[in-house]
Amino acid sequence: MEKETFTVTFFHPQPTKVKVTKGKDLLSSAIEAGVFINSSCGGDGVCGRCKVIIKKGKYKTEPSGRISPEEREKGVVLACQTIVLSDLEVEVPPTSRLDLGQVSEEDLKLLRLKGIYSSPVDIDKGKDLIKKDLFIHSPLATKLYLELPPPTLSDTVSDLERLYREIRKIKDIPIMQTGLTNIKKLGRLLRESEWKVTVLLGKRNGTVEIVSIEPGDTTDKNYGVAVDIGTTTVSAQLVNLNNREILATKATHNTQASFGSDVITRIIYASEGGGLEKLHHAVIDNINGLISELTRQAQIALTDINGVVCAGNTTMIHLLLRVDPTFIRREPYVSTANFVPVIRAAEAGIKINPRGLLLCVPGVSTYVGGDITAGVLACGLNRKEELSMLIDIGTNGEIVLGNKEWLISCSASAGPAFEGSGVKCGMRATKGAIQRVEIIDKDEVRVFTIGEVRPKGICGSGYIDCLAELFRKGIIDRTGKFKDINSKRVREGSEGKEFILVFKEEYDLPEDIVITETDIENLKRSKGAIYSAGFTLLKKLSLSFKDIKEFFIAGGFGTYLDIDKAITIGLLPDLERERFTFVGNSSLVGAREILLSYQAKKEAESIAKKMTYLELSTEPGYMDEYVSSLFFPHTELERFPSLIK
Amino acid sequence: MEKETFTVTFFHPQPTKVKVTKGKDLLSSAIEAGVFINSSCGGDGVCGRCKVIIKKGKYKTEPSGRISPEEREKGVVLACQTIVLSDLEVEVPPTSRLDLGQVSEEDLKLLRLKGIYSSPVDIDKGKDLIKKDLFIHSPLATKLYLELPPPTLSDTVSDLERLYREIRKIKDIPIMQTGLTNIKKLGRLLRESEWKVTVLLGKRNGTVEIVSIEPGDTTDKNYGVAVDIGTTTVSAQLVNLNNREILATKATHNTQASFGSDVITRIIYASEGGGLEKLHHAVIDNINGLISELTRQAQIALTDINGVVCAGNTTMIHLLLRVDPTFIRREPYVSTANFVPVIRAAEAGIKINPRGLLLCVPGVSTYVGGDITAGVLACGLNRKEELSMLIDIGTNGEIVLGNKEWLISCSASAGPAFEGSGVKCGMRATKGAIQRVEIIDKDEVRVFTIGEVRPKGICGSGYIDCLAELFRKGIIDRTGKFKDINSKRVREGSEGKEFILVFKEEYDLPEDIVITETDIENLKRSKGAIYSAGFTLLKKLSLSFKDIKEFFIAGGFGTYLDIDKAITIGLLPDLERERFTFVGNSSLVGAREILLSYQAKKEAESIAKKMTYLELSTEPGYMDEYVSSLFFPHTELERFPSLIK
Repeated sequence: MEKETFTVTFFHPQPTKVKVTKGKDLLSSAIEAGVFINSSCGGDGVCGRCKVIIKKGKYKTEPSGRISPEEREKGVVLACQTIVLSDLEVEVPPTSRLDLGQVSEEDLKLLRLKGIYSSPVDIDKGKDLIKKDLFIHSPLATKLYLELPPPTLSDTVSDLERLYREIRKIKDIPIMQTGLTNIKKLGRLLRESEWKVTVLLGKRNGTVEIVSIEPGDTTDKNYGVAVDIGTTTVSAQLVNLNNREILATKATHNTQASFGSDVITRIIYASEGGGLEKLHHAVIDNINGLISELTRQAQIALTDINGVVCAGNTTMIHLLLRVDPTFIRREPYVSTANFVPVIRAAEAGIKINPRGLLLCVPGVSTYVGGDITAGVLACGLNRKEELSMLIDIGTNGEIVLGNKEWLISCSASAGPAFEGSGVKCGMRATKGAIQRVEIIDKDEVRVFTIGEVRPKGICGSGYIDCLAELFRKGIIDRTGKFKDINSKRVREGSEGKEFILVFKEEYDLPEDIVITETDIENLKRSKGAIYSAGFTLLKKLSLSFKDIKEFFIAGGFGTYLDIDKAITIGLLPDLERERFTFVGNSSLVGAREILLSYQAKKEAESIAKKMTYLELSTEPGYMDEYVSSLFFPHTELERFPSLIK
Repeated sequence: MEKETFTVTFFHPQPTKVKVTKGKDLLSSAIEAGVFINSSCGGDGVCGRCKVIIKKGKYKTEPSGRISPEEREKGVVLACQTIVLSDLEVEVPPTSRLDLGQVSEEDLKLLRLKGIYSSPVDIDKGKDLIKKDLFIHSPLATKLYLELPPPTLSDTVSDLERLYREIRKIKDIPIMQTGLTNIKKLGRLLRESEWKVTVLLGKRNGTVEIVSIEPGDTTDKNYGVAVDIGTTTVSAQLVNLNNREILATKATHNTQASFGSDVITRIIYASEGGGLEKLHHAVIDNINGLISELTRQAQIALTDINGVVCAGNTTMIHLLLRVDPTFIRREPYVSTANFVPVIRAAEAGIKINPRGLLLCVPGVSTYVGGDITAGVLACGLNRKEELSMLIDIGTNGEIVLGNKEWLISCSASAGPAFEGSGVKCGMRATKGAIQRVEIIDKDEVRVFTIGEVRPKGICGSGYIDCLAELFRKGIIDRTGKFKDINSKRVREGSEGKEFILVFKEEYDLPEDIVITETDIENLKRSKGAIYSAGFTLLKKLSLSFKDIKEFFIAGGFGTYLDIDKAITIGLLPDLERERFTFVGNSSLVGAREILLSYQAKKEAESIAKKMTYLELSTEPGYMDEYVSSLFFPHTELERFPSLIK
């Protein structure tokens, strides 16, 4: 018997209709409709982020503590907990909308995606991490123009061997391969182009492939794209493979967030029927969208893109390739592949030159992916005489320590708080996010937003500031609890005490912007996880933070990260501030270098092979150290001497 | 406006119907209907082999000298010269039918396909060309059973690297590759099979590929097929890749013959719209048919065939791969590829393990293909201290001369006479072909047929005997003309004088079996082309036939080739008969060795690279030598001293 079908109309605010069968949940219906709704828990009804308002129609919903009685009255439900029983009209409030529009050029600057390392202007200023001539220019895909000697009765070598012969006159290539597709069209192509052709050579797993052959000289058209697949943001940069020129950079939200905000939720989703397929298509759509935008902006043909390099954490790379990530979260937490062979981009669904190549930056382990390898490459940890440390603050906080001799990494479950998730008024570091906070006194607060617009929520760097200021001004104690003080900004909320940063009346907001005691607890756990991870890693090697010459701080913060305040809350160790550099998206920089240089690719491989991984969960002492760090700044105050002053 | 369509019914003798548009020619209609009709000239109306009888309906036909007035009265037309103007009923007489049935086991023996080199029994007798342990056993596809150590918290290397690590414990493989298809299923496969898997490793162009991965131990199922793609016959042999055992051998007619009997006609056909496609499908159907027969006979699964090696002349390999052969026949006669990379068999349309490999034996030049390379490998010319010569008698007569130091080849346009084509009563060396002739005197003749059945026509070895006998008995003179003698067997035919070998009344045949003066002229040109090619090649190197220690004679003769008579007519030089060995299908033997041994493959490559090619058409002296050889046995009788006696 066929199930009844109903029409669900989502207003977000444009109406979008979708036909669904009776009993389907609203979150799935929204995804089918292409309406992307926030969701952190992957549909478990826990995160309370997928609130929608039913305007009309019959439904059934599970009761949830996330919905207040006033909200319930207004028809607010959790989309994931609500099933369709008739035609429905559903409003998606702004707070639940996942903004999937392209990030604006301005935002990009803010996001530091074209930051100090990527923009040619900044490179001129000598601010780039990677010097232009550090790696030998030898891109993933190279073009070679050849004028072949036409065959004669005394030189009757076949077309293919003639081509090989000519290429080998110029390049020393022991193993050369090509596919039947090229061979099939070779005879006619060579003759119709009067023996003048351009071959596209691709580097594939220790061999060189003739990727494609074009008539005439097309060597000037050879582009590539570097991609950083973040759990939250996907960033891409278009480069000219001939001369390293950066032509454009774009970013977009990772649509996968709609299926769960963190990696674990997505792995669970992927393990269910059709889930892997959906997550794969989500990120592929993101990448194709970015590439298509980039080519439009640079006015080049999509088919002149001959290579793509993707860096991402291990799960993101699995999902990119449609490889089942199920086993990543089952003990002993093993991925299917950390070193993925170079394949044709089309095999993954990426729309460039149909024969163009896709290289995934090799990862170290399940929890330390190619994004970290690329980051290490970009920061040059592996080339430095003295010890340095890369701290990538994200849902998984990854830490790498080392020098030119050795590299060791670890990964800490920091939670999504610094990415603006799992905290009451948290948001990603985009326009409208409070990224800087000054507390003048317990009643007076100044906030600064990204883009200097009306505040919408708080991002990671805003929370760091906020915590540091609350602590410095004595509003919270060392455990993160509100002191018993009298302030118009401190009140009892639904989740315990909270501090109001912005009153809704100030900017005509739907609600006050607050930081709750629960938020502070979450943030404390995040900062504690990262600090104690770094500490434990060093201790394991009989080292301490002061032995580190340079710290590179990467992560999805805004334009601004106040190192001093990060130290105040105990996220970073208390050392001379000059030792710290905020590097933004080092993964994208590394991916670009790999795209442009085989030497950089080999170096990335050597980084990934050389890097050892310390599993913290089984490391004795880590839990104690973690618990000790659940104070501001730390149980052992003497570790933060500059704060005592 | 749409064209009218008509139904053509072919009786061959079963009725087969096909719908065709008005004006379509009957030969194309027959091919579309799957009715295969003889045709040598590819539809030019020249060969007169595609005679059919119109029983009913309207048609238009071009007048042809190939149709006698009596035939015309009966409704006989050339299919290629006749267009359809209404529904038609067409009878395909036996003489025009291309018998596409499988060659029987008996025929196979006759055809020497399982002859002295291929049958295990014969190998035991020490008769095989290639000793069992000559080449290191190292087949195109190898299976390896692995029991992987399952990952633990202290050994978290990824699934793919775990697999690589385990393989490298057993085999030293510097460059290992695998496709996304395998990676996608790897995680689940390893766990569901409890880390016990069989990997199929394939050798691809200097690297090793993990072709596929199966759960459990399947190492006992690993088969391969060697194929010789002859212009006339396609032969295939099924072997166990683990232990070299030959499981079955089959042959079938090359269906391409229906589109033209020789290589040049097929190249022309391929250059026309859709022609390449049809020729490609014809040979692929043949190969798939053979493989399917072989697997049925050996009772193994088609998908357990993991590798195929094909040897064939350069044009056959182009058509196999659907590579346009057009430029092979345009000056300076260059092929698209002589060294074809190893590809997946499925790419060419061969139905085995979908990821199984196809290797084409490398060729030397446009006119000396992989079949000759394989033949040289099988006969071991390249391993011998002393000089030897391989003479492959076919439409193109290929000759290779050399020893372990050097190899030189040439190719002579011998024409199809020795393959039974272009001669009045010629046929291929199959059942019913006269392969041995004894002329007792001018009136009494004894003929012996393949399979000892009623004679149907004459094959190459029959013609050699016939010529030698006619010459010895003084019935023809040294130029090949009939002497003025009185015999019931010599008469004036439609094409001049002819000699009757078999009167139709003897066996109730539709027509007498004869050899005409035109046939003799054709055969004389064929034998002259081959002899003079060998002579010229030797002369170029200041050598002569007597410097050759061993001659290997290959070609599509029957069970029988009378070396003495081949010398009598001047096809082979007049030397001690012990120097000659008739080797049958040496190409298939070579292909099989390459399938079984990477060392043999490397040796084949070195043969193809080392072998130089002498282009006879531009060689001064060749034409003179050719003209001198257009006598029986030769203008210079002193070259054949044993005949003078």
